[in-house]
Amino acid sequence: MQSRRRARYINLVCLSPFHMQIACLDLEGVLVPEIWIAFAEHTGIEELRATTRDVPDYDVLMRQRLRILGEHDLKLPDIQRVISQLRPLDGAHAFLAWLRTQFQVLILSDTFYEFAMPLMRQLGEPTLLCHRLETDAQGRVVNYRLRMSDQKRAAVKALHQINYKVAAAGDSYNDTGMLSEADVGVLFCPPENVTREFPHFRVTRNYEELRSAFADARRTLG
Amino acid sequence: MQSRRRARYINLVCLSPFHMQIACLDLEGVLVPEIWIAFAEHTGIEELRATTRDVPDYDVLMRQRLRILGEHDLKLPDIQRVISQLRPLDGAHAFLAWLRTQFQVLILSDTFYEFAMPLMRQLGEPTLLCHRLETDAQGRVVNYRLRMSDQKRAAVKALHQINYKVAAAGDSYNDTGMLSEADVGVLFCPPENVTREFPHFRVTRNYEELRSAFADARRTLG
Repeated sequence: MQSRRRARYINLVCLSPFHMQIACLDLEGVLVPEIWIAFAEHTGIEELRATTRDVPDYDVLMRQRLRILGEHDLKLPDIQRVISQLRPLDGAHAFLAWLRTQFQVLILSDTFYEFAMPLMRQLGEPTLLCHRLETDAQGRVVNYRLRMSDQKRAAVKALHQINYKVAAAGDSYNDTGMLSEADVGVLFCPPENVTREFPHFRVTRNYEELRSAFADARRTLG
Repeated sequence: MQSRRRARYINLVCLSPFHMQIACLDLEGVLVPEIWIAFAEHTGIEELRATTRDVPDYDVLMRQRLRILGEHDLKLPDIQRVISQLRPLDGAHAFLAWLRTQFQVLILSDTFYEFAMPLMRQLGEPTLLCHRLETDAQGRVVNYRLRMSDQKRAAVKALHQINYKVAAAGDSYNDTGMLSEADVGVLFCPPENVTREFPHFRVTRNYEELRSAFADARRTLG
């Protein structure tokens, strides 16, 4: 199976480092629906619609969500079964397929692997950097684990260190660190308060506009 | 299309950072054939079989390759057409599909995007970090551009910085930096001199063994 002729060790010396390009995308609101809200609608559990708008402390909110899941005896496989019936946003699949012909792509999200994976399969499994849930032996979600603080911004910094220029798109406050750190930052269907507070980011409102923004970024970043 | 209810800004504070896992794979010799050798066989251009074994200076070798392409009037689209007829190694697609259910995956390769992309499409377009070729207006390959020196090792370091533990597999000398830097390093069908010089890496000789090695890594890395 393997060729017998192999390249010997070459420490590739790079005298003039050459930047290449990568695209970073938020997940919820950009490619798939907001998972907790869609999940609440799907299950009819009204209480699960609460966001940090209603419960500003993220930890309090997450504890409340886990409590509600427990009360409804929703274990991880049940939740994944519901989430697997969710669909990417209309046009998301085609947009992502196009983007992958233009850039290498990474998805940077503050969701959890256990929730996102059924949706990622529908999107052709792009690489996803996010957080994780902790379950017990019965599959009950007992805790959530953030990989690190401000992980989206940190990922863009890490990509810069390995000589990538980054074009990034997101829709919300928790994307603005990533968009600021990126070489090109684009907002996609943002709420009004985000556009007001971050007027320097280009605003796109559908996939055609988002595609144009990335096509322009590709030219700009050379 | 967009939900009106959105999470407000939450600076996710992570008091106890939690490592997650990523798998890094070399491309040539692990998932696809050695591209230059396969290309030489495909075109019958014997001179293109030369590797750093025959011409130790990588720059001299690459200049020679570009000269040969020019002499045969092979432009980038011609080369891509030939490469698109190459196939991943037997079993590579199934192995990678399995690996993507277990880990987020990145391909770290010292090839060039312009050569690899037709093969990446056949593998379901995993994210690829590599180098780039420069072409003129007529599509002639006039230069090669390394993104950076020792990029595989640098990528693993960058992943560590954003709290990923890394399991990596490669077949050759230019993978040993990546394997040393990774939390778990695995050799796949390596030549004898590599196993002799790097006896501390687990050696796998087919996809079943490689799968076992990654399954073990997943358990070890927790």
